[in-house]
Amino acid sequence: MPGAVQSIERAAAILRLLASGHRRLGLGEVAASLGLAKGTAHGILRTLQHVDFVEQDQATGKYQLGAALLHLGTSYLDVNELRSRSINWADALAARSGEAVRIGTPLEGQVLVVHHVFRPDDTLQTLDVGSLLPLHASALGKVLLAYGGTPVAPLVEAGLEAYNRHTVSTPEELDRALAEIRDTGWAAEIQEMIIGEAGIAAPIRGQGGLVVGAIGVSGAVERICDTRGRPHPHLVALVRDAARAVSRDLGAARW
Amino acid sequence: MPGAVQSIERAAAILRLLASGHRRLGLGEVAASLGLAKGTAHGILRTLQHVDFVEQDQATGKYQLGAALLHLGTSYLDVNELRSRSINWADALAARSGEAVRIGTPLEGQVLVVHHVFRPDDTLQTLDVGSLLPLHASALGKVLLAYGGTPVAPLVEAGLEAYNRHTVSTPEELDRALAEIRDTGWAAEIQEMIIGEAGIAAPIRGQGGLVVGAIGVSGAVERICDTRGRPHPHLVALVRDAARAVSRDLGAARW
Repeated sequence: MPGAVQSIERAAAILRLLASGHRRLGLGEVAASLGLAKGTAHGILRTLQHVDFVEQDQATGKYQLGAALLHLGTSYLDVNELRSRSINWADALAARSGEAVRIGTPLEGQVLVVHHVFRPDDTLQTLDVGSLLPLHASALGKVLLAYGGTPVAPLVEAGLEAYNRHTVSTPEELDRALAEIRDTGWAAEIQEMIIGEAGIAAPIRGQGGLVVGAIGVSGAVERICDTRGRPHPHLVALVRDAARAVSRDLGAARW
Repeated sequence: MPGAVQSIERAAAILRLLASGHRRLGLGEVAASLGLAKGTAHGILRTLQHVDFVEQDQATGKYQLGAALLHLGTSYLDVNELRSRSINWADALAARSGEAVRIGTPLEGQVLVVHHVFRPDDTLQTLDVGSLLPLHASALGKVLLAYGGTPVAPLVEAGLEAYNRHTVSTPEELDRALAEIRDTGWAAEIQEMIIGEAGIAAPIRGQGGLVVGAIGVSGAVERICDTRGRPHPHLVALVRDAARAVSRDLGAARW
């Protein structure tokens, strides 16, 4: 049933489009963005609205994502083994390091944050679960790239966005960085996405030894790095220990 | 295009099914649960897998929800006006009441929790965002029912599940309870779902005055209620003030 496949793919593309903009979109914008006839886009939107995947604003007639997706998203977390196996280790890592801990898994050329433990102090922090990080400009992402958790080629073809002068933004720099990560077993990201922020991450292996995710700490560069601008060795050791513990719980034979 | 509509509705039904069980399902289980031919179910599952809405376990071949849904779910929260307008008021309510605060909106005969502020102490708490509460056995839900935020009839037809002897479980009891809520402007739920737990909630009105959600506190019955077993009046006042403040921010003319 190629028609069924096509309509589901189009429905998914519309949901993705609505998720990308952080604003409501009109029928014309949806149709034009995806190269669909207005009638086709309208039929799909109406069906998505019927199943609560899309909501239409009464006043403007514009579309936004619907409430059913929130429940599906959190249900995904409930069955996610990477997350459930790592919750306790992530808590322990945050307590020992005094830093925020995040666990990431590859999703469509980016890193999806599936778990986030706040830095254990009383500062105001925003939950990152569900947000996407760039592969080449996050410690979690670089680990996934280095260990084949996600392919490098499409990322390089799409171009490496330079967030600032610290970002790894050429294929050669990326190759070197990934080789170094494979050599040492952990990745650092130092002000490569956001000036003032840094992170350290290590790979999580699943059954069979394949890298299925990454765990890491992130925070102010002054806390993550020493006076020479290198990640504190004791933080690196804590992150690697946590990654090994999660891998062992996931059934990896070697970690 | 009735075929397109049908395949999207079937895809949504499969996702809902995978979300309901908190476990992976085989192709046969999916097909049988939804009354689909195996070939039809397989085609839809493969397409959903292709767009990362579904994942297939390598070892068992069973299906579970996919990572893309987590990102869509959190993107829904980003554009959700009820949530964004109420975050600051929810924080303030938690600080003043010393209790956990939740904000709910109707979703398919249940209450979807769109925001949750932990009780301001150091106890271990689980984030309820994305989870579903029963309409008739939660303070948030009873508010939505009392003020037309969601219809009463389908709920009564489906039957009111009795969680324990405190649950409002007959249509007559429910009618009386809802009339009282409309009379006083707030709802209480006292051990009606979980023994030892209680909650207080008040309606949030949107532009045009319609009730679009509810805000409330919940926690141990000993803290929520006084020695006569009635909700503390000062907690009721705090909840109602917060509900009015959010309604005003949402553009409700009267609150």
